[in-house]
Amino acid sequence: MLNGEKKIESPLRWGMVGGGRTGQVGYKHRSGALRDNTAFTLKAGAFDIDFDRCKSFGQNLGLDVSRCYPDYKTMFLEEAKRKDGIEVVTVATPNGTHYEIVKAALEAGLHVICEKPLFFKTAQGEEIKALAEQKGKIIGVTYGYTGHPLVLQMRSMVRNGDLGDIRMIELQYTHGFNSAEESDKVDAQKWRVDPKTAGPSFVLGDLSTHTYYMSRLICPHITIKQILCDRQSFIKSRAPLEDNAYCLMRYDNGAVGRFWVSSVNAGSMSSQRIRIVGSRASIEFTDTQPNELIYEIQGEPIQKMIRGMPYLYEEGLEDERLGALHSEGLIESWSNIYLRIAMAIDAKNRGDTKSLESLIYPDIDAGIDGIRWVENCVKSADAGAVWVDFE
Amino acid sequence: MLNGEKKIESPLRWGMVGGGRTGQVGYKHRSGALRDNTAFTLKAGAFDIDFDRCKSFGQNLGLDVSRCYPDYKTMFLEEAKRKDGIEVVTVATPNGTHYEIVKAALEAGLHVICEKPLFFKTAQGEEIKALAEQKGKIIGVTYGYTGHPLVLQMRSMVRNGDLGDIRMIELQYTHGFNSAEESDKVDAQKWRVDPKTAGPSFVLGDLSTHTYYMSRLICPHITIKQILCDRQSFIKSRAPLEDNAYCLMRYDNGAVGRFWVSSVNAGSMSSQRIRIVGSRASIEFTDTQPNELIYEIQGEPIQKMIRGMPYLYEEGLEDERLGALHSEGLIESWSNIYLRIAMAIDAKNRGDTKSLESLIYPDIDAGIDGIRWVENCVKSADAGAVWVDFE
Amino acid sequence: MLNGEKKIESPLRWGMVGGGRTGQVGYKHRSGALRDNTAFTLKAGAFDIDFDRCKSFGQNLGLDVSRCYPDYKTMFLEEAKRKDGIEVVTVATPNGTHYEIVKAALEAGLHVICEKPLFFKTAQGEEIKALAEQKGKIIGVTYGYTGHPLVLQMRSMVRNGDLGDIRMIELQYTHGFNSAEESDKVDAQKWRVDPKTAGPSFVLGDLSTHTYYMSRLICPHITIKQILCDRQSFIKSRAPLEDNAYCLMRYDNGAVGRFWVSSVNAGSMSSQRIRIVGSRASIEFTDTQPNELIYEIQGEPIQKMIRGMPYLYEEGLEDERLGALHSEGLIESWSNIYLRIAMAIDAKNRGDTKSLESLIYPDIDAGIDGIRWVENCVKSADAGAVWVDFE
Amino acid sequence: MLNGEKKIESPLRWGMVGGGRTGQVGYKHRSGALRDNTAFTLKAGAFDIDFDRCKSFGQNLGLDVSRCYPDYKTMFLEEAKRKDGIEVVTVATPNGTHYEIVKAALEAGLHVICEKPLFFKTAQGEEIKALAEQKGKIIGVTYGYTGHPLVLQMRSMVRNGDLGDIRMIELQYTHGFNSAEESDKVDAQKWRVDPKTAGPSFVLGDLSTHTYYMSRLICPHITIKQILCDRQSFIKSRAPLEDNAYCLMRYDNGAVGRFWVSSVNAGSMSSQRIRIVGSRASIEFTDTQPNELIYEIQGEPIQKMIRGMPYLYEEGLEDERLGALHSEGLIESWSNIYLRIAMAIDAKNRGDTKSLESLIYPDIDAGIDGIRWVENCVKSADAGAVWVDFE
Repeated sequence: MLNGEKKIESPLRWGMVGGGRTGQVGYKHRSGALRDNTAFTLKAGAFDIDFDRCKSFGQNLGLDVSRCYPDYKTMFLEEAKRKDGIEVVTVATPNGTHYEIVKAALEAGLHVICEKPLFFKTAQGEEIKALAEQKGKIIGVTYGYTGHPLVLQMRSMVRNGDLGDIRMIELQYTHGFNSAEESDKVDAQKWRVDPKTAGPSFVLGDLSTHTYYMSRLICPHITIKQILCDRQSFIKSRAPLEDNAYCLMRYDNGAVGRFWVSSVNAGSMSSQRIRIVGSRASIEFTDTQPNELIYEIQGEPIQKMIRGMPYLYEEGLEDERLGALHSEGLIESWSNIYLRIAMAIDAKNRGDTKSLESLIYPDIDAGIDGIRWVENCVKSADAGAVWVDFE
Repeated sequence: MLNGEKKIESPLRWGMVGGGRTGQVGYKHRSGALRDNTAFTLKAGAFDIDFDRCKSFGQNLGLDVSRCYPDYKTMFLEEAKRKDGIEVVTVATPNGTHYEIVKAALEAGLHVICEKPLFFKTAQGEEIKALAEQKGKIIGVTYGYTGHPLVLQMRSMVRNGDLGDIRMIELQYTHGFNSAEESDKVDAQKWRVDPKTAGPSFVLGDLSTHTYYMSRLICPHITIKQILCDRQSFIKSRAPLEDNAYCLMRYDNGAVGRFWVSSVNAGSMSSQRIRIVGSRASIEFTDTQPNELIYEIQGEPIQKMIRGMPYLYEEGLEDERLGALHSEGLIESWSNIYLRIAMAIDAKNRGDTKSLESLIYPDIDAGIDGIRWVENCVKSADAGAVWVDFE
Repeated sequence: MLNGEKKIESPLRWGMVGGGRTGQVGYKHRSGALRDNTAFTLKAGAFDIDFDRCKSFGQNLGLDVSRCYPDYKTMFLEEAKRKDGIEVVTVATPNGTHYEIVKAALEAGLHVICEKPLFFKTAQGEEIKALAEQKGKIIGVTYGYTGHPLVLQMRSMVRNGDLGDIRMIELQYTHGFNSAEESDKVDAQKWRVDPKTAGPSFVLGDLSTHTYYMSRLICPHITIKQILCDRQSFIKSRAPLEDNAYCLMRYDNGAVGRFWVSSVNAGSMSSQRIRIVGSRASIEFTDTQPNELIYEIQGEPIQKMIRGMPYLYEEGLEDERLGALHSEGLIESWSNIYLRIAMAIDAKNRGDTKSLESLIYPDIDAGIDGIRWVENCVKSADAGAVWVDFE
Repeated sequence: MLNGEKKIESPLRWGMVGGGRTGQVGYKHRSGALRDNTAFTLKAGAFDIDFDRCKSFGQNLGLDVSRCYPDYKTMFLEEAKRKDGIEVVTVATPNGTHYEIVKAALEAGLHVICEKPLFFKTAQGEEIKALAEQKGKIIGVTYGYTGHPLVLQMRSMVRNGDLGDIRMIELQYTHGFNSAEESDKVDAQKWRVDPKTAGPSFVLGDLSTHTYYMSRLICPHITIKQILCDRQSFIKSRAPLEDNAYCLMRYDNGAVGRFWVSSVNAGSMSSQRIRIVGSRASIEFTDTQPNELIYEIQGEPIQKMIRGMPYLYEEGLEDERLGALHSEGLIESWSNIYLRIAMAIDAKNRGDTKSLESLIYPDIDAGIDGIRWVENCVKSADAGAVWVDFE
């Protein structure tokens, strides 16, 4: 049970690029990273393209104003000069800038944590992976909505055969906040529907990469062989970027799957949902009720498992913090992911390959995997929603 | 509000082919038809291929044993001789026999109510439609799971623009009762996975035709332009018939849709589900909670509408029987459909074209529509799950 | 599994007093009694104080107009003259008239089915019980909301010790339809808040007697020793009759309980609810979801049991009609109760004491029990909501 | 919207008494207090009666070992000597020690945050209140389960008359983790059922004080006039302390209420629940779904309001952190309470009476109120569960 006691010798000195006052995501990174103050400690930031706002914001977070920087390049340069300079940086900027910032960070000798989708192309991912290996650095990817303890319970259940053979993977990440064209006028949304800043996709990259990663965590033993994706731009001005997409998947073990990703599912507040159907039983999880897991064995009463209860598998209790009955929310998910990334960085620093290999966290491969997912979806969609081999 | 008072001058004299003691569906027909005793009255039956069991069963239902018949041909022949012979017959036999029995019934001068899927081919449907017209008879098709009052409420909401423009149609009819091969050993299931008796599909015909009809009721103004269907036989012995299928649809107004139909969704008890997403709001209904309708307007609190409440549209209250708070179940759905078919027969008998045209019930066109749906799904699936024009 | 085949030799000739066009309850009686047409057949009625309306209504139900009567006295007199006269009558009139009508019915040689609360005083109940015994007749009481199959499942679970020792009984029957004074202006409601017609209570008699009977069915082995009731008239014009009441109970085994009954629980659509807490586990049922039973074993996943599934106890499957997945509603509850009453009448007629004793149905004792419940509540409430011995 | 930016000039130097490694509650305090690092900073602790464990624990939290103390007296003494000594201390020890520690803390010149129930007697509360006033210090009480943003939304709805006149207050805080006697063998539970350490009550003090405070927050305009409490010790060894209690309340405005508090509600995982019924509408909240609020207007569709949505009242959005769709859990509740206490301390320090008066947080009066609640319950229960005037 996690109670804030340190997992690594001392907290990592941490900086942020992006994640300032005007967006929502920065606070999630900080809430996750700084939970317990034993994994990370915030030391520097280039939070904002407006330098004055950056400084005011950093100071309000308790930073030394001299470590609030006008841009990431300055930050990497100046921090590198300090003995107590940052060791790791989070990149929480629009997608189109990830590649250059991550590369610069690695070259500045930093471990990196980056928002999803990591980059636009798998080739970029492979290049950065090689660079990180060369530099001896960790890349963590914040699939921040997938760190709920019950996700690992699902993983254990699948591995232990509780479901029988896997037959179907149902994935969904939908909301309706972009149902109207007006929603695109907000700054935090505008860049997401512009291919220059968002890349080849809107909701596929922005939303589905989370759930896709979750499915990989839960069912690591099967992989997609073929995929078909049909995508739409219900708000015409978003074309060619999609605000809705349907995918069909065929897995190497004969299983099939579906994915629905959308930001125009009007009125829906239920968000991310995953259902794994096996020959014997199914499990279903939705991240708006992250304390519950539905377990349906054919022919038996439907079971609702509750986070934190002793009947869960060891792995499902590994990230337990509050105890059953005490609701966890999204921030515990982020905290778990940030803590595991900190432990990976620490293991890497110590050359502890064994710990590193046994540690489950969204690493560079998970990041590349997400890029590949989007690439394959877009390839199918752009060919007219036909089946393509998943490469 | 329906309270059992007659809607037609006197109850129709009714017979059944099939629906005997060994299956489940016959009781649903009788419970629906005989509700209130003012629409139908059961007079004759060829319930069973085992004539002794047929007679014992008929007598236990209160029938005159002399009107329990060894087969449908005898029944049609003998009943036709009686002044008080049956006027209408229900066909609740395996799919492969529908065509010949319906045809014989029409030729014997009977109105017909038939189980879904009506026939195997749309051509058969068109032929029977012509015959029925010639004979001046009604064909009703028992999409018996679609008669819940809130289905018509959804229809009104869509027509009145409460959802804005329709963008997505989510359809699902899944259960897990056939997850294991053993389930095929039961008589009531065995014929369903044999192409000779079941036709070109298992779950597509057996389950999805209901939900497809429901979607047509709710959104009559849009039609499918293209469809893609991927079907599987997770239990190998069922091939070429599918126990699971995924469909993607493209509608003429730009809307898209999905359908998941399955009898191997292990452990699932939630059955039939329909969600209509519009540019402004969505509605969602599941027939395991038929007294509730979820109405989600983007940016407003989620609404749960309750059957029988005065805030519903007139059409949504048309089939109201028990009053709000008093749960209705599946039998009210069947009762509503049977009552409407009785009213259609009565209007036809009286030559009341106007009433007939304004009456919503699953007629021969709805039956043909269901065959067409299955045909198009199979066509796509058999071509490798490719997009086909919906014909 | 019930499928409409007869349980008694031939359907009982049945009449109704009350239950006409202007109220809601008559249709529930008819839907319950006439389900399957093998238990009862409607032959006569004094449905309405307006004789013309009675005749028009009866004819619309398919009755011979000559057997539609201006009042119950005439009906009992005239029917008694017929060889095919009614054998059993349902009394569905305002509470204040039950006693005299039931008495007259017994004296006319009829079995009787009567609405709850049966009478105003237990003494009346005892008198009628003696009369019924003398006449060799059955009295059934329509606690029509308590006949759901899962109620007997709960009974079996308690008897089999699945819950351990019973510690708490939580009972609730609340709605909000009388939150405003205006609701009393409707005829069907007006008499319920007038002590002359309704007796010593409004919601205690009207609603709580159902749930109290259900608790007796489920936990027959424990009885209330002391009770405390606090009742209110939030709409002043209803005083002294209550529109809300809270009860606390103490049982002979050391268990305790609560009851909340209300018609001013504004906005609530969840109606009747019962939770039994044992030393090991709890069960919870609400009649707006009558196809589900929640079973919570301390330290294990929460279970949702589904009506009709083979894992239920035999008793919980006894009244099964439609099969799992196929929703039952309120009418199945009424049907089960009417069918059991028919079987009781038949056993009584045949002198089959053994069958009669093993048959669970709401009999005269259950009726008296309900009166006693209300009497004790009122006694406590009128003494200032103090503990009184339950007598 | 809260995003971690500071609300007070600099974080308060904070220490803890209790809350060490062996209990669950300390982590909740730290997670709440240290959220964002802009309200509190942990500087010292006397976490444990085992000094070695205290030191090891403190160091693992990142504390200077020289500021890990063997007991609270030493900590208060030593910290007072430091220029950078703690300014505020949290007391998270067994109930029986609160009074002396809080008193010592005030005398050492510290602001105090204390677990509930604050003390055993209101007289103690009044004495400490006077002392705090004299010392110019704040007392905050961690009703840590009541800080969910939607609680203030409920407060606004009641104040704005959305419910009409308040008629009923339904309160519940129940779980089943102490259903078996074995559960008392754990250290963290043992002291709770011993009057010496726990005081005059078990679950009334331990659980119900939270929900009672929540009801006061939501309906500050009405107060209890009379109360009746029936309490039980289902596990005999717990007597005279109760593991279950039922309360009935009568309010000064004519409203009535109920409270069920229990740790033997076997299998229940739904915890804390509050329903407020008005003449027009009701609201219902349960802290296992803290992101939802049910709003039921009589005669309208049931509404589910979602945390963070713009349609909420300003007050209901005041503590918003993550944005709608992003689940908050218990820790956000604790964070909100700790932040408000920090703001109160800061206002007190600055002599900003106006801010202090407008700030809603669980202050000394809320603490005394909780003691009074328990005292009145116990008084009624010990007199045989009779009505007593609420004093």
